[in-house]
Amino acid sequence: MDLPSSTHPLVFSMRHFFVLSLALNVSFILRSVFEREQGLNWFGFESEKERITQRTRLSVSSSHSSITTLAEAQDSGERIINLDHGDPTMYEKYWQQMGDKTTVVIPGWQSMSYFSDISNICWFLEPEFAKQVVRLHKVVGNAVTDGRHIVVGTGSSQLYLAALFALSPSDASEPISVVSQAPYYSSYPSMTDCLKSGLYKWAGEAHNFSKEGPYIELVTSPNNPDGTARHSVVNRNKGTLLHDLAYYWPQYTPISSPADHELMLFTVSKSTGHAGMRIGWAIVKDKEVAKRMTKFVELNTIGVSKDSQIRAAKVLKAISDTYEHVDDSEVGETFFDFSYHNMAERWKLLREAVEHSGMFSLPKFPPAFCTFFNQVSEPRPAFAWLKCEKDIEDCETFLRGHKILTRGGKHFGVGPKYVRISMIDRDENFIRFVKRLSTIRI
Amino acid sequence: MDLPSSTHPLVFSMRHFFVLSLALNVSFILRSVFEREQGLNWFGFESEKERITQRTRLSVSSSHSSITTLAEAQDSGERIINLDHGDPTMYEKYWQQMGDKTTVVIPGWQSMSYFSDISNICWFLEPEFAKQVVRLHKVVGNAVTDGRHIVVGTGSSQLYLAALFALSPSDASEPISVVSQAPYYSSYPSMTDCLKSGLYKWAGEAHNFSKEGPYIELVTSPNNPDGTARHSVVNRNKGTLLHDLAYYWPQYTPISSPADHELMLFTVSKSTGHAGMRIGWAIVKDKEVAKRMTKFVELNTIGVSKDSQIRAAKVLKAISDTYEHVDDSEVGETFFDFSYHNMAERWKLLREAVEHSGMFSLPKFPPAFCTFFNQVSEPRPAFAWLKCEKDIEDCETFLRGHKILTRGGKHFGVGPKYVRISMIDRDENFIRFVKRLSTIRI
Repeated sequence: MDLPSSTHPLVFSMRHFFVLSLALNVSFILRSVFEREQGLNWFGFESEKERITQRTRLSVSSSHSSITTLAEAQDSGERIINLDHGDPTMYEKYWQQMGDKTTVVIPGWQSMSYFSDISNICWFLEPEFAKQVVRLHKVVGNAVTDGRHIVVGTGSSQLYLAALFALSPSDASEPISVVSQAPYYSSYPSMTDCLKSGLYKWAGEAHNFSKEGPYIELVTSPNNPDGTARHSVVNRNKGTLLHDLAYYWPQYTPISSPADHELMLFTVSKSTGHAGMRIGWAIVKDKEVAKRMTKFVELNTIGVSKDSQIRAAKVLKAISDTYEHVDDSEVGETFFDFSYHNMAERWKLLREAVEHSGMFSLPKFPPAFCTFFNQVSEPRPAFAWLKCEKDIEDCETFLRGHKILTRGGKHFGVGPKYVRISMIDRDENFIRFVKRLSTIRI
Repeated sequence: MDLPSSTHPLVFSMRHFFVLSLALNVSFILRSVFEREQGLNWFGFESEKERITQRTRLSVSSSHSSITTLAEAQDSGERIINLDHGDPTMYEKYWQQMGDKTTVVIPGWQSMSYFSDISNICWFLEPEFAKQVVRLHKVVGNAVTDGRHIVVGTGSSQLYLAALFALSPSDASEPISVVSQAPYYSSYPSMTDCLKSGLYKWAGEAHNFSKEGPYIELVTSPNNPDGTARHSVVNRNKGTLLHDLAYYWPQYTPISSPADHELMLFTVSKSTGHAGMRIGWAIVKDKEVAKRMTKFVELNTIGVSKDSQIRAAKVLKAISDTYEHVDDSEVGETFFDFSYHNMAERWKLLREAVEHSGMFSLPKFPPAFCTFFNQVSEPRPAFAWLKCEKDIEDCETFLRGHKILTRGGKHFGVGPKYVRISMIDRDENFIRFVKRLSTIRI
C-alpha cells in the first residue's frame, strides 16, 4: 500500500516520543481491557465512565503509529465487539491532539433567532459554515462549489429525505421510484418508506429496474457498504441522479477530480468524525431544487442547530488552515495525513488477519492517482465488506458466535454471506477485532 | 393586570439605575432608528451588522422597564415591521444580563459519537439535558415527569412528526385522520401532509370531524395563535390525544397544575427563547410510543445535535438554579420574572394601542390562579390574535398596507378578519409596531 509523500516531517520526529510514551501506557490499557472483560456488556458499548478513562489513557498515545503497537494487546474473546454502526470515534484522537484549536465558546444570548441569513435561499444556513464548506472543498478538490447552492441539514440523512421531496413531482398520480445498485446503504429503504409517502417509493436494486417513466437513482460513491467507486447504472430518460458523497474524502479513496453532479450530499460525520453534531450539507445546481429542499427542512425541523453549524465551521476551518498555513504557529499533523495513515494501517492489519484466518475474503481495490496527495494510492473504505468463505452461509450469525457484531448482507440488498464492518471505531475496539478475527477457524 | 408578588427586591432598586442609563442611550437608539429608515428593507429583517449594533445599545438598557421608555421613540411609518414569525428575540436581553452563566465551552474532540446513552430508549438523549428538563418541570410545576419517557427532538416540530408516526397504526388500510380545533397552528396542515403520507392525513377542524374509526386530536394549550386554554373537543372512542404545550410556561399563562397527558411536547424556542438551538422534548407515558418516536428521529436525522442539547441543558439549569438558590452569588432577576413583566408590559401597550386606534379588537382572557407565581393573573400569550373591525375584510392585507407583516387568519383555518402577531420580538420592533398600530385610521 502506498503511503503519501506529503506527510509532515514533524510527525516522524514525534513518533519516537509517542512510541515511548505508549510503552508506558500499554500496561494500563491491557489492565483496562482485562478489567472490562470481567463484566459482559451485551450491547458492546462502553459506559461514559469507561470512555473517559479510555480517552485519558489513549490521549497520551496520540500518534497513529500507536495502532500497530496496540495490536500486541491480548484478547480473551469474551468481550462483545460492536462494529455494526459506523460510529466515527477513530477521529477523537486527532481532535484531542489539536487541543483547543477547535474549542467553541457560545454565550447564552447568541444564536437565539430562527434565522441565520435571510438573503440566502437556505435562510437557516450559518454564513461562516457555508464559507468553510466551500473553502474545504477547494482545499481538497473533491467537489465543485462555484455557482452552486449550499443547503445545510441535520446530518445528510435529513438532506437525503429533503432531496427526495425536492426531486419528486408533486402532481404525479403515483410515487416516483427510488433505486440504487446493490449493495446499498441499509437505511435507505426504511428511510424512504417509513412514512409510506405518496411522493416517492423505494424500488430496490437499480439493475432490476424496468419501469417506464421518471425515477430517482441514488449513487453512493465510494459506496456504503462495499467501498467501490460508483456510477449510475439505469441511464434512461426521465432519470434524476442523487449523489451521496459522504465518503469522497482523501482518507477513504483517491480523489480523481472535483465531483460535479446535480445534487451532492456530504456530512461531517464521515469527513471530520463529528457524528454527534448532526451536520450535513448538500451542494445543489438547480435553484428550485435548493428552494424545495430548504422548504422540506423548514417543515421537518424549522432549520438546523446553529450551535452545531458554528462548531462544524470551526472544525472545517481548522482543517483548511493547516493546509493553507494561515496560522504561523505549530500546525502539527494535518487531518488527512492522520486519517489516511490510520485507515491504511487498519486495512493492512485487517488484510493480515483475514489472510491468517483463511475463513474470509475482502474486496480488492484498484490503485488510482489521488490529486490531493499527488500520488497513486489504494482506496481504504470506512467499512470493510467481508465475505465468509468455506460453507458459512450466514456470516453475521457466524461472527456473532464469536461476539463480533456486524451488519449482514441482507440489510444491504444482497445475500447473507457478506457483512459490513466499521473501520472507523476507536483503536482499542478495532485492534481487539482484528486479533479475534485472525484466530477464527471453523 | 396583576403583577406577581414574587419579584426579586433587587430588581426594583436596580430599576432607577437602568432608567438613568437608558435616558443616556435613547438618543443613540433614536438616531439608529432614523438612519435605518433611510433604506427600506423589504423583508423587514435587520442585517447582522445592525443587529450587533442594536444589541450593544440595548444591553445597556437591560431592565424590562426600558420598554415603556422606548415607547417614546418616533416612528415615521416607512420601515417594514415583520411580526409574521414567532422569533423569540425578546429573550436575548435576559441572557445578556446573565453574562457568562450560560456560556458553553465545547472542545473539538467532545460529543463525536452518534450515541449519548445506550441504556436509554432514546439513545441520542444527553443525560444532562434529560436531567435539567425534569428539574425545570418540577421547579415550574407545569408537567408531570415521574415515570415518563423523555424523547429529544430537533425542535418540537420533529417531535410532532415523530408523534404522528408513533401514534398511527402501521397496518391500516388508509391514513389516520389528524384533527385540531381552529384556529390551529398554521404549519400543522403542511407539516402533516407535505409527504402525502399513507400513515396519517390532516383532516382539519376538529369540531367538523365526523368520521368513524381512529383519529389523532392535536390539542395546543395555550393555543397558537389565539392564546386560549384548550381541551380536546372530539371525545370519541379510538381517539388519541397529542398535546402541544410549547406555551404552557408562567410568562404566557397561569400554571394551574402539572400537565398530565399521554404525550406532551415542549420546546426551548418558546420557553427560554433559544429557537436557533432547535431543541424540543416530548414527555411520553407509553414505552412503545417512546420507542417508535425514537425510531422516527433515527430514520429522520439519526439523532439530535449533542452540542445544542448540552447548551440547552446549561440554559435550563441556569433558570432552575436561580429558583433553587444553588449558587450563593448574585442571582439577578429570575427568568420568569423578567419574561412575565415583559409580556405584561407588552400586552398593556398593545391594548392601549388597540383602544387608541379604534380599528381593532383583541381577545379577553379570564384571570386565573397561577401556582408558580402564587397569585391570580391574566394570560399574556406569545401571539396576539388581532381582529380588524369596521369594514376591513382582509386584516393581513390591510396591515401590510401599513408595512406591518402579520399572518392572516386563513392560514389558521379561520377567516381573513384575523391576524396573528408575534409578541416576543425585540423591544425596538415591538415598540415601533404598537406606536404605528395606535395611529392607524381608515
